Amino acid sequence: MGRIDPKEYVPRIEEALRRFVPEEKERMQSGLFEAMRYSLLAGGKRIRPVLLLEFCGVCGGDQQAALPFACAVEMIHTYSLIHDDLPCMDDDGLRRGKPSSHVVFGEAQALLAGDALQAAAFETMLSPRSVAAVGAERAAGAAGILAEAAGARGMAGGQAIDLLCGGKSVSVAALQEMDECKTGALIRAAAKMGCVLAGASPRQVAAADGYAKALGFAFQIEDDLLDVEGDAGTLGKPVGSDADGSKSTYVSLLGAARARRAVRELTAAAVEALGVFGEKGAYLEELARRLAGRKN
Amino acid sequence: MGRIDPKEYVPRIEEALRRFVPEEKERMQSGLFEAMRYSLLAGGKRIRPVLLLEFCGVCGGDQQAALPFACAVEMIHTYSLIHDDLPCMDDDGLRRGKPSSHVVFGEAQALLAGDALQAAAFETMLSPRSVAAVGAERAAGAAGILAEAAGARGMAGGQAIDLLCGGKSVSVAALQEMDECKTGALIRAAAKMGCVLAGASPRQVAAADGYAKALGFAFQIEDDLLDVEGDAGTLGKPVGSDADGSKSTYVSLLGAARARRAVRELTAAAVEALGVFGEKGAYLEELARRLAGRKN
Repeated sequence: MGRIDPKEYVPRIEEALRRFVPEEKERMQSGLFEAMRYSLLAGGKRIRPVLLLEFCGVCGGDQQAALPFACAVEMIHTYSLIHDDLPCMDDDGLRRGKPSSHVVFGEAQALLAGDALQAAAFETMLSPRSVAAVGAERAAGAAGILAEAAGARGMAGGQAIDLLCGGKSVSVAALQEMDECKTGALIRAAAKMGCVLAGASPRQVAAADGYAKALGFAFQIEDDLLDVEGDAGTLGKPVGSDADGSKSTYVSLLGAARARRAVRELTAAAVEALGVFGEKGAYLEELARRLAGRKN
Repeated sequence: MGRIDPKEYVPRIEEALRRFVPEEKERMQSGLFEAMRYSLLAGGKRIRPVLLLEFCGVCGGDQQAALPFACAVEMIHTYSLIHDDLPCMDDDGLRRGKPSSHVVFGEAQALLAGDALQAAAFETMLSPRSVAAVGAERAAGAAGILAEAAGARGMAGGQAIDLLCGGKSVSVAALQEMDECKTGALIRAAAKMGCVLAGASPRQVAAADGYAKALGFAFQIEDDLLDVEGDAGTLGKPVGSDADGSKSTYVSLLGAARARRAVRELTAAAVEALGVFGEKGAYLEELARRLAGRKN
């Protein structure tokens, strides 16, 4: 049962990402692989794959076998950032302090890099090796959760809501609906997938979902608070995009004090959801507190 | 064992596509579903899903249970057409005689419709219901084949090669490499998936692959011949895109007479590959001959 030390999560994820999307220098389309790797290996907290691995471990699963699934979630997240930065979307030239994909590789290649990363996510999870390591039932279950979270009722749907709401003043409810789709769905999918890969009970899956839902929402509000304080958003949002005053944010709608309180309450709710896991939830509790109190 | 009359293939596929991507009028992102359906339900020969269903039937599988997988291949094909038409790619305003997705819905929504259709393909194949109907092993196997065919070593890779070669004079080998990725991979995937869903033998899967490889290549050359004759290409190519004289085609590289001969030889090779299936291959033989002699 391949267990991974939490300190090793990020390096192990990075190493696996490099392996699952190799350079392929001998292929005519090596430039496409280069573009995929440029964005995929550009750093970041790797929160989603970490959540997947940790929930898998907490539920007694094989974290080593879960690595392809953890990487798949990060591939979906990365593809969404590439497409989100395109000129027809947010038109953002910088991502994590580096030129965006389309600035480096051109719009067409950036579009394809995003498209290919989405396919790579499913290819990685559904390779004969990945499927054999966790069993077909769990592999299909986890991949199905990710597909639903990435699609029109999840992340892509959230982007479409953003197109409707973007730059406009909207209600807290509309903002929340958008964020639940745009970023919440993928975070919740990661947590649930970790459980499913470990053969967890429905009660455990529901607890993981509750934790991730509260965590994701807290993270989003914290992002808005950090934006107001002049820091960079870090959960897939372009720097300062919410700070231009034309777009509703949790801070503009609730005020900073109520927004801070919401982060505290949501963090408490996330921690409470962990009760099912007993002492095994300690790392996830710490993670929730760390994200709520983060400085970037 | 849900068998489907070949005459019913296309209407059954159309009906299932409507069901798998419903209107969702009550959602904030109903416009995204509208854009997905606009392209998905715009007609076409549905060759890929038909191939999948027929190979599934020939190998003794449950065609009814294979429908979500057949539809998934068509969703991947449709997403590729939407993205291919975008201004940063082929910048094509017409598709199958109708305004392209981005002309109707705008670039951002068209981008998202393509993204969401790729996710929908995997969501459709990996829903608990689809998985239960064919068994997790076969579902994961078929979905894995499609993921690989859609990705950087398949269709998206072919698009990247097209970016390199587009509008340039290239060798027959380069053109063939591009087409094998860009259109061949998905056609071959459809044939193989049909077999895998039926629990076919490796020998049957290899024969289906050989048939589809020859068929796809013949189709591509026939497309070029039809373009020269002033007709519209129909396998995902914009009308007249190869007829502007600046880009290599099989006809420009081989001449019309050799191109015609290649179509005949490839069709014969496709038919020969069907030998394994005995009399059950009759429909597939007729399909190969029909496509090679088609008028549009």
